[in-house]
Amino acid sequence: MNNSLEENLRWIDEHHNGTRYGLEGKVLIDERSSYQRITIIESSRYGKGLLLDGCWMTTERQEKSYHECLVQPALCSADSIKKILIIGGGDGGTARECLRHQEVESLDMVEIDGRVIELSQRYLPTIGKEAWKDDRLRIKIEDGIKWVENSQNNIYDVVIVDGSDPLGPAKGLFNSSFLKNCKRILKPKGIFATQSESPESFTKVHIDMIKTIRKVFEFADPLYGWVPIYPSGWWSWTFASTGKAYYLNPLPKRAVKIEKDCKIWNTRWHKGGFQTMPNFIEELLKNE
Amino acid sequence: MNNSLEENLRWIDEHHNGTRYGLEGKVLIDERSSYQRITIIESSRYGKGLLLDGCWMTTERQEKSYHECLVQPALCSADSIKKILIIGGGDGGTARECLRHQEVESLDMVEIDGRVIELSQRYLPTIGKEAWKDDRLRIKIEDGIKWVENSQNNIYDVVIVDGSDPLGPAKGLFNSSFLKNCKRILKPKGIFATQSESPESFTKVHIDMIKTIRKVFEFADPLYGWVPIYPSGWWSWTFASTGKAYYLNPLPKRAVKIEKDCKIWNTRWHKGGFQTMPNFIEELLKNE
Repeated sequence: MNNSLEENLRWIDEHHNGTRYGLEGKVLIDERSSYQRITIIESSRYGKGLLLDGCWMTTERQEKSYHECLVQPALCSADSIKKILIIGGGDGGTARECLRHQEVESLDMVEIDGRVIELSQRYLPTIGKEAWKDDRLRIKIEDGIKWVENSQNNIYDVVIVDGSDPLGPAKGLFNSSFLKNCKRILKPKGIFATQSESPESFTKVHIDMIKTIRKVFEFADPLYGWVPIYPSGWWSWTFASTGKAYYLNPLPKRAVKIEKDCKIWNTRWHKGGFQTMPNFIEELLKNE
Repeated sequence: MNNSLEENLRWIDEHHNGTRYGLEGKVLIDERSSYQRITIIESSRYGKGLLLDGCWMTTERQEKSYHECLVQPALCSADSIKKILIIGGGDGGTARECLRHQEVESLDMVEIDGRVIELSQRYLPTIGKEAWKDDRLRIKIEDGIKWVENSQNNIYDVVIVDGSDPLGPAKGLFNSSFLKNCKRILKPKGIFATQSESPESFTKVHIDMIKTIRKVFEFADPLYGWVPIYPSGWWSWTFASTGKAYYLNPLPKRAVKIEKDCKIWNTRWHKGGFQTMPNFIEELLKNE
């Protein structure tokens, strides 16, 4: 029987706690870097995609529901956005969203695993797009935890953490000493942004992250959205600042330029997303 | 090799357009009724669950993110909630959420497939709970389309459509003549509520539903939330009324009694959920 098409197609799944989410497709690359297993696939539904340690990170046609929601709430709301730091973000989508803003003068992207960048540039060029050639982008293949330890006080307008789950190389991006350094290197009116997991699939991690961030920053709030390829499809990003919750209100002059080319984000969505904390998370946050 | 546990465990998946979502578990019942294939499973993650024609409908430990969001926006906001109609809803979760309100005096539940009710009562009793024994509930095993055709004008305070995807028995629940009858049988200040599919996985159906409902009712708006077992995990419900968008503002006296025992819904979540239409859906709705 000649069924070579079927032989080449298979399901690539992420398993999570008795659930699985899969895309039909084929594996293009499956290798181990010094830090993690890196898999590049091609799917019928969402184009090419990236998994790290077997977990879905991004796909060409599903990445905006993650990258817009991590970046634009911070960059459209911050007082100044001249100097930005990204920790992680090796696929380039977060850098691309930042560099849509002409006000950004320099963007440091500190990614621990250079191989993720190489493979993303080669196989997922539609995610990083023109960001990879932008003179404002400075790529550092270094440990983000050490980077924030060694950075000077008050130098960044926005710090964005675009890491994977708190296992493997991203583990240190979820603790208090890392967060304190992020606060220290931010300018006084700066905004901190991080992905903060699923309230459904990672309830404890999600709650612990919000509580920890609230202990370090004066204001911190999660925003809820959707990333269908991630466990449960229900995702969150948490934003923090000091003095005032700067992240809650996008500046109209900046938002108007950005939202017209967004798939998900606009000012209305942004304000709604900060209100859609489910009742059970609100109750869990009350229990100190 | 004796691995009977593993032999009994398998993945039960719903396939959708090159994606799949599965729960690890075992199949308890898999049969054909006069209308559809009915499958009852037991999963490690979410307890027992129901599939119709291979599509996830509900599970014991994941059902509130659907039922609360279909029911409470309507029942906490409507002017009066004495007389309610549910079309579909055979698992009993929608009836249970309605009957939490003491103001409800009678609830007609019109389900075309009596076998769904029988199997839900036997295998999923934690979903319908005490609703099945409530004197206010009147179950009619009939075609919901004919029921709304044959009902008198202005008799229901709230009409709720809790149907499956617009294929198979639920097909007629998505067209204009059905909706016009729903409007006709509602009291002047009544609220219409329906699940309205995923903006991500059923974009065209979602857009068409909103446009059709807006042509029939004076006001109609989708509310966005999460049902992790459904395609993409990103789901919507659409609410409609005439004269005023009654569904936008929960009445505090009613909400305060309900929200404390909700997993997802509360007044803040409700107001946010009506604002989280993604930018691409807003754009598609502009194109008439």
